[in-house]
Amino acid sequence: MTIEYDSGSCKYKNWIVEEKKFKLENQAKYETIFSLGNGYMGSRGTLEESYPNEKPGFYVAGIFDQFPGEVTEMPNLPDWIKTEIFIDNNKVDLTKDKIHQYSRRLNLKDGLLIREFLWENKEGHKVKFYFERFISMSNLHSALSKIELEAVNFSGEIKIIYGYNARTSNSGTQHLKEGMKRLIDNNLIYEPETQQSTLKLCFALNCEISSQRENIKAEESILSERRQLKRIIKFNLLQNKKVNISKYFSVYSQRDQDLDNIDGLQDIVLSNLKNNKKRGYEDCKLKHVKKWRSIWDEIDIKISGSNFDQLAIRFALFHLIQMTPVHDNRISIAAKGLSGEDYKGHVFWDTEIFMLPFFIYNYPQIAKTLLKYRYNTLKGARKKAKRNGYQGAMYAWESARSGQETTPEYGRIDIETGEEIEILSGKLQHHITVDVQYMVAEYYRLTKDFDFMKDYGFEIFFESSRFWASRLEYNKKKNRYEINNIMGPDEYKKHINNNAFTNHMVQWQFDKALEYVKKLKEDYRKHFEFLKSKINLDEKEIIDWQDKSKKLYIPQINTDNIIPQYEGFFDLKEIDLKKYRNSPIDTIFNDLSWEQINKTKVCKQADVVMLIFLLRNKFTEDIIKSNFAYYEPITLHDSSLSPGIHALVASYIGEVNKAYSLFKRASRIDLGENMKSSNKGLHAASLGVLWQAIVFGFAGINYMEDKLYIEPSLPDRWEKVSFNIVLRNNKYKIGITNNKIIIEVLKLNNQIPFIINDREYEIKEKIIINY
Amino acid sequence: MTIEYDSGSCKYKNWIVEEKKFKLENQAKYETIFSLGNGYMGSRGTLEESYPNEKPGFYVAGIFDQFPGEVTEMPNLPDWIKTEIFIDNNKVDLTKDKIHQYSRRLNLKDGLLIREFLWENKEGHKVKFYFERFISMSNLHSALSKIELEAVNFSGEIKIIYGYNARTSNSGTQHLKEGMKRLIDNNLIYEPETQQSTLKLCFALNCEISSQRENIKAEESILSERRQLKRIIKFNLLQNKKVNISKYFSVYSQRDQDLDNIDGLQDIVLSNLKNNKKRGYEDCKLKHVKKWRSIWDEIDIKISGSNFDQLAIRFALFHLIQMTPVHDNRISIAAKGLSGEDYKGHVFWDTEIFMLPFFIYNYPQIAKTLLKYRYNTLKGARKKAKRNGYQGAMYAWESARSGQETTPEYGRIDIETGEEIEILSGKLQHHITVDVQYMVAEYYRLTKDFDFMKDYGFEIFFESSRFWASRLEYNKKKNRYEINNIMGPDEYKKHINNNAFTNHMVQWQFDKALEYVKKLKEDYRKHFEFLKSKINLDEKEIIDWQDKSKKLYIPQINTDNIIPQYEGFFDLKEIDLKKYRNSPIDTIFNDLSWEQINKTKVCKQADVVMLIFLLRNKFTEDIIKSNFAYYEPITLHDSSLSPGIHALVASYIGEVNKAYSLFKRASRIDLGENMKSSNKGLHAASLGVLWQAIVFGFAGINYMEDKLYIEPSLPDRWEKVSFNIVLRNNKYKIGITNNKIIIEVLKLNNQIPFIINDREYEIKEKIIINY
Repeated sequence: MTIEYDSGSCKYKNWIVEEKKFKLENQAKYETIFSLGNGYMGSRGTLEESYPNEKPGFYVAGIFDQFPGEVTEMPNLPDWIKTEIFIDNNKVDLTKDKIHQYSRRLNLKDGLLIREFLWENKEGHKVKFYFERFISMSNLHSALSKIELEAVNFSGEIKIIYGYNARTSNSGTQHLKEGMKRLIDNNLIYEPETQQSTLKLCFALNCEISSQRENIKAEESILSERRQLKRIIKFNLLQNKKVNISKYFSVYSQRDQDLDNIDGLQDIVLSNLKNNKKRGYEDCKLKHVKKWRSIWDEIDIKISGSNFDQLAIRFALFHLIQMTPVHDNRISIAAKGLSGEDYKGHVFWDTEIFMLPFFIYNYPQIAKTLLKYRYNTLKGARKKAKRNGYQGAMYAWESARSGQETTPEYGRIDIETGEEIEILSGKLQHHITVDVQYMVAEYYRLTKDFDFMKDYGFEIFFESSRFWASRLEYNKKKNRYEINNIMGPDEYKKHINNNAFTNHMVQWQFDKALEYVKKLKEDYRKHFEFLKSKINLDEKEIIDWQDKSKKLYIPQINTDNIIPQYEGFFDLKEIDLKKYRNSPIDTIFNDLSWEQINKTKVCKQADVVMLIFLLRNKFTEDIIKSNFAYYEPITLHDSSLSPGIHALVASYIGEVNKAYSLFKRASRIDLGENMKSSNKGLHAASLGVLWQAIVFGFAGINYMEDKLYIEPSLPDRWEKVSFNIVLRNNKYKIGITNNKIIIEVLKLNNQIPFIINDREYEIKEKIIINY
Repeated sequence: MTIEYDSGSCKYKNWIVEEKKFKLENQAKYETIFSLGNGYMGSRGTLEESYPNEKPGFYVAGIFDQFPGEVTEMPNLPDWIKTEIFIDNNKVDLTKDKIHQYSRRLNLKDGLLIREFLWENKEGHKVKFYFERFISMSNLHSALSKIELEAVNFSGEIKIIYGYNARTSNSGTQHLKEGMKRLIDNNLIYEPETQQSTLKLCFALNCEISSQRENIKAEESILSERRQLKRIIKFNLLQNKKVNISKYFSVYSQRDQDLDNIDGLQDIVLSNLKNNKKRGYEDCKLKHVKKWRSIWDEIDIKISGSNFDQLAIRFALFHLIQMTPVHDNRISIAAKGLSGEDYKGHVFWDTEIFMLPFFIYNYPQIAKTLLKYRYNTLKGARKKAKRNGYQGAMYAWESARSGQETTPEYGRIDIETGEEIEILSGKLQHHITVDVQYMVAEYYRLTKDFDFMKDYGFEIFFESSRFWASRLEYNKKKNRYEINNIMGPDEYKKHINNNAFTNHMVQWQFDKALEYVKKLKEDYRKHFEFLKSKINLDEKEIIDWQDKSKKLYIPQINTDNIIPQYEGFFDLKEIDLKKYRNSPIDTIFNDLSWEQINKTKVCKQADVVMLIFLLRNKFTEDIIKSNFAYYEPITLHDSSLSPGIHALVASYIGEVNKAYSLFKRASRIDLGENMKSSNKGLHAASLGVLWQAIVFGFAGINYMEDKLYIEPSLPDRWEKVSFNIVLRNNKYKIGITNNKIIIEVLKLNNQIPFIINDREYEIKEKIIINY
């Protein structure tokens, strides 16, 4: 096994992901899946030593910068993790030295990244190494690590070089001015500043050496080069005397909301560092671990029957928590979280459609914070609409700080033309401006948080309706509205007309907006008037939405019950897709150009399946079945968003085996043994959808009309799955076996009726129901 | 031997520098000493494969850019040399594979970088490799390379990945916008643009595969990532059938003077590439080699008696030629040439004082071009003067495109204060504005090129006099002018008063300017009036110069005949310098802070020795001897500019052994076996001064008052040295043995009298004189 999934035991069973053998070619994968973060900052799991082709990555959420000629992105900040170790003047290098008992493991339960090995050089000198690292969940500005060294059969000289390397970049793009370097009381201080957005950051770093020997006499010196500030420490390692090197790192940025004043950045960061040092490494770690334990108490999903599935959902939830900036509603979750620079730290529909449900059902407060980001970026969305000749708010396909469109304009070279391919998502994937609304409505439906709607949600909705009202194109001949020249979720199809997903969702959005208008008019007249005047909304516009919703053309099913992905989809060329169905992502591009793919009956992900997933109640089970059967075989799942959604829809129609096989595919996107799949960062959406596939899919949780339906269909292998859900201030623990549903009330606020086997239950404490 | 100096034989004897064993830790040194260039572009000698800690560097002379918060510098441009080679899917890697008969060698005679080895994998499969590379001297925009492969005992699949990597940077600072990538007719086109100075470049790259087999069927594909554009070529390598991979690279930039119009950049670069391809690799190489041979016919210095010295002077001249932008008088030679990013591609006094004499005596036209750069940057120098509250032109200590000051403000961390040390050279080393003038005067003295003076030289001089007139400080008490708060060439002494070097040189400069004024008034009245009105020069100013020259305080010798480096130098603290005299550069900083060094009687290089070198005739031989004896032992030669100058002065006073030992030290700065000395680039000045140490020092060439004095004092080991010199349109071949001087006239224009052994000779053809 390249990745060991089974190495946790006892209380760590199914909590450990392990690398048992160091291989250079696997490092990019491990850097990603072993990334650490706390929502404020995130760091890729690069090793202390330097190796070829590694990709150190360190990010602070919400820091964005724009390099000339590029779009704004999340800068890769200076590396502070690297720590070169020399034993008797020879650099420790896993590719060259003899390494015994190697193990690197991510401990999901405690949020620790651990590495240990026994090092041996040519002379037979042996040193035991133990590394530990965490980014504190209990103190957002702190990250700590330690190295323990023990010379087994000799005494020798150790040299450690640690510090900052600000030569890191986003694949060559440098976002940081070199910044000030200083040494204050043995603390390495570094103050870089983003070059265009001129945001100052301040880093502090300190290393403490202690030993079983009372006093360790270390010789220290400093090394300052261009964009580098390092400290060299030399000391003697005596045989069998363990030495402990604790590293304390703190970071603040100018845009932190917990800052009193910007000028004191250096004082604040130093005071944070000093507090941590005073507390000591072990105590800081304890607080961090405790925080993780309390998070797991809330969110853990327990699966019996498959160790891998158990580990996989924990892996997913662990990273979801690590990447979410819960402290700041001016930013949201990036497509790769804080685990890599790919997609530039931008926020996509991934956050709402794929990740938000997990938060709504676990931490509704966090879900609200994430949705507020969309409210806070309305200004940018209005600008985008205006720039494109539309009204209202048109959300950015890729969104950063301001909410303006930040999708890059060009991508890779087309094999046919030799020219760079235009990236059209920013221009054509308008559906983002209904995906956001969909999840605003879901949040409201599931939380009844009217205050949120009053202050943020309705405005988001009405501005979206306005956008769509201006976006629709009237077809006089057919007396209908159309949405032409668009792109649905399936990015293999560009410049299409009347995309089923988009048109359906837009109609849904008009209707939902009108429903809200009705409610506001009836019950909150005064607030409605306030809102209307705030965004200058006219009654005529509302009448217009009604008309447009009615006359919006909805692509109709054909005689086989199939909804066309868009007008003309059925006429596309059919080719044998076997070759591409289970091959690495984008293999089809080796044979076909973009133009050819556009004309072929093949989906990167199936729009209609996505549509069914979101508007399930709009379609009969028959239609769902036919369409899944039609679209699944022509879908390559070349998007990581795809398999999880297909798993969910398969669950809906009772195809448990298919659902489980797609779930397995989804759960392996990052955690699986394809060592190239995740080099550039985690697939955050696919992690989020795993939670949905379990809770909505296999467990069959379905909240409709203020009642909670449970219709489980567990995979054969699973004996039991259990998890907590939070619903309208109630908290339930739900356990499901292959014939029983166990519901336990953890917190009761306002009774929610449960519907199981068509029977309604009022649950006050605990209940076990056969199904 | 880490570096092999003796491996050239027959016609290549003393023309080859060789690396016989590949060692990772030596690569930075070899990248520098094996760098290639043609004055237009230069490339560090990185290998085709990628290795840890390598520093690829590719530069086009005159391209400058300024990153926010930094000074303008020469950008490290995208790498086009890297060529990864896979044999049966295993990457060729010298650190892992078995390598036999390794040799990499710089062929100075032909300007070729060659590498060969026999590769063997675990299965015993063997492949013979031969690499060759050159940057064309005959076509400034072209660089070519080839790889020859021969499978010795198997047939297998070869995969080659070549192309552009634009993730290169100046130690993390990115100067380039990502730019357009394209594939046109199998040519990889890349058009980066500097981010602030917005200079466009266009690169074209092509690989041609041929074989002893008639036709080679290669499978090609393309790889475009962020800041990368690569091509993958796969083909079968049959046993004993040699395959040849020729790579053609062309580059143009928007600021090339040989461009008709900027918009056609892509067409021009493609047409250059196509012409080269049509001509073929071998033919292009032949033209390049021919060009080098014709250069060597002009500049070669032949030394019998020491193979190393012979190689060393060729190495120096080779690099001097490679780094000199003879095609463009808007730029000059950088302190590291085109061999590294250190000193940011900036021009220092190094060019004039250390390198220019070689050009004056070999290619006066090139010397003129280089001096025109100083004329072309007068505007920047005027700005610097104004900004500092002075008049006239104050040259930049570090000069780039505009001539404005580009010295960075801060350097490394001070061990005592923990703060970054201010770099004071740009603020205090005012002597640059007399060093330039000194070499203008030398050029005029040696060439009698009055046209140059008329058009450029006088203006440079008068603006400099103006600057100094405004710079001098009047000491009322002592009724004298002083120059306080300054730094001389010795950078270990900051904020000093009345530096001997500066004050002497400034006085010389006033006197020279007044001599020119006199000549102009007498013989070129009209032009003088024109000049005066051009730069708005007043007769009063000229009178002021006379007064200031007279009253400028010149630090006087003490009773021991010693000139104080500056006021107060004799009072400095004396310490034992033994520890630092022969240790690596800057070792003293391990023990002393800047402040302490400032108060210690120690020189990085000795100002007084430098002064004696330039104004030799001002001092008696006694004074020269006493001062050399005083200053040499307290000089650490921590500047690469130092040993060569000290060697010269030692020669002047007949201390041949000392001179030779210092010459040997100078000749080893880059070429020697200190594998860390040259990581960041060549020491161009020290290469230039080697020529002076031989020609002015050992050969004793001294042109005074229109007569050429020859007073040789060859090192004992040398049997003969011979070289050409060009003087006032005459060309001589001069040979010197330990008792004979052989002078041969190669071109005669206007008879120059030679003075040897106090006797004057008129030489018309060839003469042999005993001395």
